[in-house]
Amino acid sequence: MAIESKSTFIINNKAEDMVKWLSSFGLSPDGGVNRLLYSSAWGEAQKALEHKMKNDGLAVHFDSVGNLFGRLEGSEAKADTVLTGSHIDTVADGGRYDGVYGIVASLLAVERLKATYGTPKKPIEVVSLCEEEGSRFPMTFWGSRNITGRYTLKDAKNVTDAKGVPLLSAMREAGFDPAYYQSPMRQDIDCFIELHIEQGIVLDRSGRSLGLVSHIVGQRRFTINISGESNHAGTTPMPLRKDAMSIASHLIDYVTTEARNDESDLVATVGKITAQPNTPNVIAGEVEFTLDVRHHEEKHLKQFCDRFHDYIQLTASENQVSISSSQWLNASPVQMDASLMDLSKATAQDNNIPFQPLISGAGHDAQVFGTHCPTALLFVPSQQGISHSPKEFTKAEDLENGVDLLTDLLYKLAY
Amino acid sequence: MAIESKSTFIINNKAEDMVKWLSSFGLSPDGGVNRLLYSSAWGEAQKALEHKMKNDGLAVHFDSVGNLFGRLEGSEAKADTVLTGSHIDTVADGGRYDGVYGIVASLLAVERLKATYGTPKKPIEVVSLCEEEGSRFPMTFWGSRNITGRYTLKDAKNVTDAKGVPLLSAMREAGFDPAYYQSPMRQDIDCFIELHIEQGIVLDRSGRSLGLVSHIVGQRRFTINISGESNHAGTTPMPLRKDAMSIASHLIDYVTTEARNDESDLVATVGKITAQPNTPNVIAGEVEFTLDVRHHEEKHLKQFCDRFHDYIQLTASENQVSISSSQWLNASPVQMDASLMDLSKATAQDNNIPFQPLISGAGHDAQVFGTHCPTALLFVPSQQGISHSPKEFTKAEDLENGVDLLTDLLYKLAY
Repeated sequence: MAIESKSTFIINNKAEDMVKWLSSFGLSPDGGVNRLLYSSAWGEAQKALEHKMKNDGLAVHFDSVGNLFGRLEGSEAKADTVLTGSHIDTVADGGRYDGVYGIVASLLAVERLKATYGTPKKPIEVVSLCEEEGSRFPMTFWGSRNITGRYTLKDAKNVTDAKGVPLLSAMREAGFDPAYYQSPMRQDIDCFIELHIEQGIVLDRSGRSLGLVSHIVGQRRFTINISGESNHAGTTPMPLRKDAMSIASHLIDYVTTEARNDESDLVATVGKITAQPNTPNVIAGEVEFTLDVRHHEEKHLKQFCDRFHDYIQLTASENQVSISSSQWLNASPVQMDASLMDLSKATAQDNNIPFQPLISGAGHDAQVFGTHCPTALLFVPSQQGISHSPKEFTKAEDLENGVDLLTDLLYKLAY
Repeated sequence: MAIESKSTFIINNKAEDMVKWLSSFGLSPDGGVNRLLYSSAWGEAQKALEHKMKNDGLAVHFDSVGNLFGRLEGSEAKADTVLTGSHIDTVADGGRYDGVYGIVASLLAVERLKATYGTPKKPIEVVSLCEEEGSRFPMTFWGSRNITGRYTLKDAKNVTDAKGVPLLSAMREAGFDPAYYQSPMRQDIDCFIELHIEQGIVLDRSGRSLGLVSHIVGQRRFTINISGESNHAGTTPMPLRKDAMSIASHLIDYVTTEARNDESDLVATVGKITAQPNTPNVIAGEVEFTLDVRHHEEKHLKQFCDRFHDYIQLTASENQVSISSSQWLNASPVQMDASLMDLSKATAQDNNIPFQPLISGAGHDAQVFGTHCPTALLFVPSQQGISHSPKEFTKAEDLENGVDLLTDLLYKLAY
């Protein structure tokens, strides 16, 4: 795509066109977007945004890790900043909307506010966060965790990507030399507002334009290993078997049925399974599977996982096999700010935008900000719930509803 | 191992030593035996056996596919042959006893009978069958199926091994030129007696020295494919999922539980499973697993498989997913000869050898002969049921009990 055609998208000032324009940085032939942290496509997108922010009359700066800020100064001396935005990075072959929509909507809202009402009382900053997905380096939320002081340069010291490139080298090559690192931590944030696509099917099914997120779920992930006995499929009578596949299936059926019967929005997923020797006419001696459990209340999450682990022990003892479980992820639920939630609700009602409260089953930068400052997370629908895919799509009308709501919300917060 | 040391094993005339001697052809450093059809180790073993048979005063010949026969001529003109033996080929890295023990026991029995009673009424032939396992070429029972007229050269025409070597080329290189092929089919077999290791755990558990096989099971194998919907593990509520892993687990748990509750020796095994995309935080969109069901009665086998397929349909409908099942193996059960079974039983009792009737859950050459002539299949124990492994082991005492029984049985059949 030539620079000319990119510019035409900007002129329209429609959310859909701006999303398309930004997707041109890292666009693959199949329509997927590849903008891994510190890659050249990533750098070009941030520079294009910097240019756009300057054109909009914002004061622009990058922090030491590559988060980009465009600031509309406020009239009140020493007022904390109303921060809004989302992340610029994508997963490999990701969609056009994930992250980018939140940056686009923030820019459009600030443009409109500035054009209509001029200088706000509190400063408003649009942020294009450098990294949320953790797709290149195992450093999910590298951007927001630097801003909130949860990560410093030290945390990235030994981190490399799949090709062995150190994060710090990639950072230097992208123009952010670790030698000049200054803490990106911000103590002047009044609140953070993130607008994002749902990446789930709830709004698409309900037909509502807007989701007001009350909580971001906590997550626990485990690997469960059943060590049975590999034996001949023909010559080993059923009562003499220690069939790891049969036992694993019983546990997976149990845990997913329990989750379906749980009436509190808990989800449990066994996404990965491997069997040894994985041969049709040999009883599996070993089966390993992962379990991903999510819920917005720590207590309920714990109870569910504890109950399953009791059942694992019972199953191991009944079948006289060894079953181990190792936990490799434990993220607590994060509650969004109740006042901001109320304000968002009132704003949606004012604008006649059909909305509903939601729990986010996916992680977002808002969960990092949520333990640092008052935070709101707002969703627009994802068609068929599809995300992290070239098929990711949100209707133009829903995109515009989101911008309208964000504009009013920022007005109420900053003017 | 030098030829000298190989010879010392023969002199002892103990089954254990002869098994060790034969395992020296194709022995790997880890103690496994590799004697794939028409390989050089396979050829050396057959030639060593030929030499041994000649030394024993037997009339020796190879047929056109490489089955080796050593014949002790009988006194009755035109009497059919009492055939005894097993297969010389092994699986990759197989055990020392599988197949070979039956050849060794037959040779020792014939040596003893000849030394003690001289010429029999009916001729006795010891056969070293060229191929049973199907480990190099997908031609299980290539040896016995040529003898019984089930296979001819035509069936091997387009068959190649994993490296692309045609079966017919390998055959030629091993000294059996297809250009000179004459049908190995035998119409002069009075009966076939196969002595084999159990390759299962039943005799080892019961502590009995001998298993008298009444049936070789029928087998059905299927591949079952569940086509659900791959989705985000966090943002897809449980009621909106079409989780192929959860559904597959339910079916595997169901079918293996049904098999355990079946009180007629049926066995069912899901040995292989694959999931897509097989990622911890993504709901599996597709899961495929194999099912291996075995039983000695065709009717019962059919009923069990039909009932499971009814349940598959019910499950597909309840979960609104597509589940397909394709059958890729259908082998009927084979009953061993009842008179030979009675004779074997009486012979075991005469020799005070503790025995029990058994059903063979594994395939054997005896099932090919079983539809061609009266056939008996006799088992000695496998320690811990281990087979197709360097750890395969049978105690010397059990090996000798087997030889004693076979000697008496052949005496009753041929003298």
